[in-house]
Amino acid sequence: MAKDFSTRAENYSQWYNDVVKKADLAENSAVRGCMVIKPYGYAIWEKMHDALDKMFKETGHTNAYFPLFIPKSFFSREAHHVEGFAKECAVITHYRLKNDPNGGGVVVDPEAKLEEELIVRPTSETIIWDTYKNWIQSYRDLPILCNQWANVVRWEMRTRLFLRTAEFLWQEGHTAHATREEAIEETRKMLNVYADFAEKHMAMSVVRGVKSPNERFAGADDTYCIEALMQDGKALQAGTSHFLGQNFAKAFDVKFLNKENQLEYVWATSWGVSTRLIGALIMTHSDDNGLVLPPALAPIQVVIIPIYKSEEQLNQITEKVQPLIQKLKDKGISVKYDDDDSKRSGWKFNEYEVKGVPVRIAIGPRDLENNHAEVCRRDTLEKTNISLDTLDVEVEKLLAEIQQSLFDRTVKFREDNTRKADTWDEFVDILDNQAGFVYAHWDGTPETEELIKEKAKATIRCIPFNNPLEEGKCILTGKPSKQRVLFARAY
Amino acid sequence: MAKDFSTRAENYSQWYNDVVKKADLAENSAVRGCMVIKPYGYAIWEKMHDALDKMFKETGHTNAYFPLFIPKSFFSREAHHVEGFAKECAVITHYRLKNDPNGGGVVVDPEAKLEEELIVRPTSETIIWDTYKNWIQSYRDLPILCNQWANVVRWEMRTRLFLRTAEFLWQEGHTAHATREEAIEETRKMLNVYADFAEKHMAMSVVRGVKSPNERFAGADDTYCIEALMQDGKALQAGTSHFLGQNFAKAFDVKFLNKENQLEYVWATSWGVSTRLIGALIMTHSDDNGLVLPPALAPIQVVIIPIYKSEEQLNQITEKVQPLIQKLKDKGISVKYDDDDSKRSGWKFNEYEVKGVPVRIAIGPRDLENNHAEVCRRDTLEKTNISLDTLDVEVEKLLAEIQQSLFDRTVKFREDNTRKADTWDEFVDILDNQAGFVYAHWDGTPETEELIKEKAKATIRCIPFNNPLEEGKCILTGKPSKQRVLFARAY
Repeated sequence: MAKDFSTRAENYSQWYNDVVKKADLAENSAVRGCMVIKPYGYAIWEKMHDALDKMFKETGHTNAYFPLFIPKSFFSREAHHVEGFAKECAVITHYRLKNDPNGGGVVVDPEAKLEEELIVRPTSETIIWDTYKNWIQSYRDLPILCNQWANVVRWEMRTRLFLRTAEFLWQEGHTAHATREEAIEETRKMLNVYADFAEKHMAMSVVRGVKSPNERFAGADDTYCIEALMQDGKALQAGTSHFLGQNFAKAFDVKFLNKENQLEYVWATSWGVSTRLIGALIMTHSDDNGLVLPPALAPIQVVIIPIYKSEEQLNQITEKVQPLIQKLKDKGISVKYDDDDSKRSGWKFNEYEVKGVPVRIAIGPRDLENNHAEVCRRDTLEKTNISLDTLDVEVEKLLAEIQQSLFDRTVKFREDNTRKADTWDEFVDILDNQAGFVYAHWDGTPETEELIKEKAKATIRCIPFNNPLEEGKCILTGKPSKQRVLFARAY
Repeated sequence: MAKDFSTRAENYSQWYNDVVKKADLAENSAVRGCMVIKPYGYAIWEKMHDALDKMFKETGHTNAYFPLFIPKSFFSREAHHVEGFAKECAVITHYRLKNDPNGGGVVVDPEAKLEEELIVRPTSETIIWDTYKNWIQSYRDLPILCNQWANVVRWEMRTRLFLRTAEFLWQEGHTAHATREEAIEETRKMLNVYADFAEKHMAMSVVRGVKSPNERFAGADDTYCIEALMQDGKALQAGTSHFLGQNFAKAFDVKFLNKENQLEYVWATSWGVSTRLIGALIMTHSDDNGLVLPPALAPIQVVIIPIYKSEEQLNQITEKVQPLIQKLKDKGISVKYDDDDSKRSGWKFNEYEVKGVPVRIAIGPRDLENNHAEVCRRDTLEKTNISLDTLDVEVEKLLAEIQQSLFDRTVKFREDNTRKADTWDEFVDILDNQAGFVYAHWDGTPETEELIKEKAKATIRCIPFNNPLEEGKCILTGKPSKQRVLFARAY
């Protein structure tokens, strides 16, 4: 069936595009760099949203909504932030169109020019800290633990569906604290929420760590991240949590009276994950037959396909299947019974395989006679006959097993593709011929980091938490180093 | 407690602003016309979102996401649409900023001018029909039943929190059908979904009807609407559902092969409600003490406040209250136990009253002795002592009663404030001195409708479904009329 599909081995990048297209997840729109997220793709995002939103609320956060637009001058207030975010962005200069006097449709009305340009938010630290200024007077107003689900725009030159688009959907948490310690604890807590989400819901093993200064968020004192390894051996940053120190409080003059009645700047964090996670999900699990979804994020967890020749046969199957569907639904499992008569069962088999539905159940007249059904798991494509009497219980077990097995596979893949390099040649050889994560010594300077990036196209993904100390020499400069850091080529 | 509150009688408009502010729902931002929706206000929107989303899915719709930006030329394709929507809007002309060579922060890079300007979506018919063009080939691809939860921008000159803001949150459904009949049925179905939501969740009585041609959505063949009456006697359009005919299909050349193998233009609908509903909710139920929320949309349905002098007393109350909280939660009721020691109970009483929490339970040591608690309902402010043994059951009943009672009150209010006018003087007199809905004869011409609007500041809110036919004379022109239509001054 894979005839109109590229394989991963042939052309990984084309394979990714094919999966996105064939599984009907998203497509490019008429607006450069902006994607249309199609219903099946959006259903995965809804699953992600719901799981994350629950985790945020369980950790004491509430949602709020801040403006789409940010006055241009706000960006200039934080010196690093403006460098990182205010450059490639969508700029609103006018607020009105008018009929073209020459009859050519509508044109921008030159009289409706804004006094100050507005920027479509690339991230919301500036507008939110301008708002928090009015919310915070004393330590009693702290902490503020807000999250926002929103769209943001970054004018990317080279875009790829989900992985890098001009507009994307995300959540951005923005918290305000009375002490440095509390803000750091929050930063770490939210990184752990992301790691839990990645591992338990996405079934994707991640490395938790801290970014090197070059890779920090623009305006942060520290950026924590989770890094995952895709099947082509390239790393993907799947979530970040930033300790912003007092940088934005100083930029927007946000002070509070502490318990000792002294004015102090507020401490801040921000953290986010985006629709990019769907790209990560696709590249982590899918195979040459199409999408593979972990049950926890699959819009349809189980599909049941009747195999029949006559309407009478279909009715018999339907009658037998109805109570099973109910039992599965009672267990909270999402089931689709596809009895659409206009499609052949072979077409359906292919369709749900490409769409990554974790479990497919097929039932024909002979299965009914034998009181069983054919159950196929999407991850391994293994088929088994299972008795109709225990099918609901077995399917529930199978879904849990698939979720675990997909995760275990990513742990093994990451371990198998994490190597140590002690010399520059070894380092480049691994990157060129094996890819994956490479632990190597680095002299700790931004200049060397930049040079390595330039020469080997690899970046420091992170310095893992609890990284063991070890004396060594920088792979590029030979200068002394106290620990290996995690390199990779990355998305 | 209402000392820093305007009353409705004194200054209705100021009262509205006070409620929004004191109940901590929203505030103006640094960006003209754009609001910040604060956590408590956003929690109400989440309740609305969840209820509506469930209703959309139960009627067969799925969510998707389309671009924030629309190429300027798209608006010119549908002649009426461009007049209605492409004028007051946010226009993106550039995609890059650069450092000011004179050191004044960042400035727009003149070299990064877009070839064609982009408009921030005021509504998405154009970009969606441009997308649907690629999704639809034959009748087998129909119907398409998509909804989008999104932000939109309309450059309003005079804004009011929730009621009219430059940026607002909404949902917009966009469906595509093979026949005119099916599209009209969908238009009507979704209007009924909105009416059900308004009546059952918002506890707000609405009139269902069809708009006069002047008040139609720009690009629609027919606009259905639900209209509610606010406490000041002004009408508020709470939701609209549009039958778009083949207008957008023609504008974007979207044809399908029908069962007879002939090419035909696709039929369309669109429908939406927005954060404006929060404004309607506030104005429908609230009183001079602050917000009043129907239980179905209240983020906190029940607040329990312990009254104590010593820590020992607090502990006794807490111990007694814990199982009650669990019982209420088991019933799906959201409960907050406010044992915050830094606030006095009087402050808390006021706080939850202003925030419209439907049921407040107060328990002190004497209540414990008597095995009861003081229960106060927000809508009537009535207090009763209820036995602790039956409190959970009684509270559940009370919430249902409040929901029903709020709705009944709006039905009565609407009936009491719906009048008939047979002459122009009567018409103006009612509008000036009593407000509310006015049924009056109209000659059916757009010119007269426009004149009435100009002279009396009143518009035709709708022609109600199943409107009784009745011979009469237009209140303005005296020309013959076959039915009365529903007029009001409106938000």
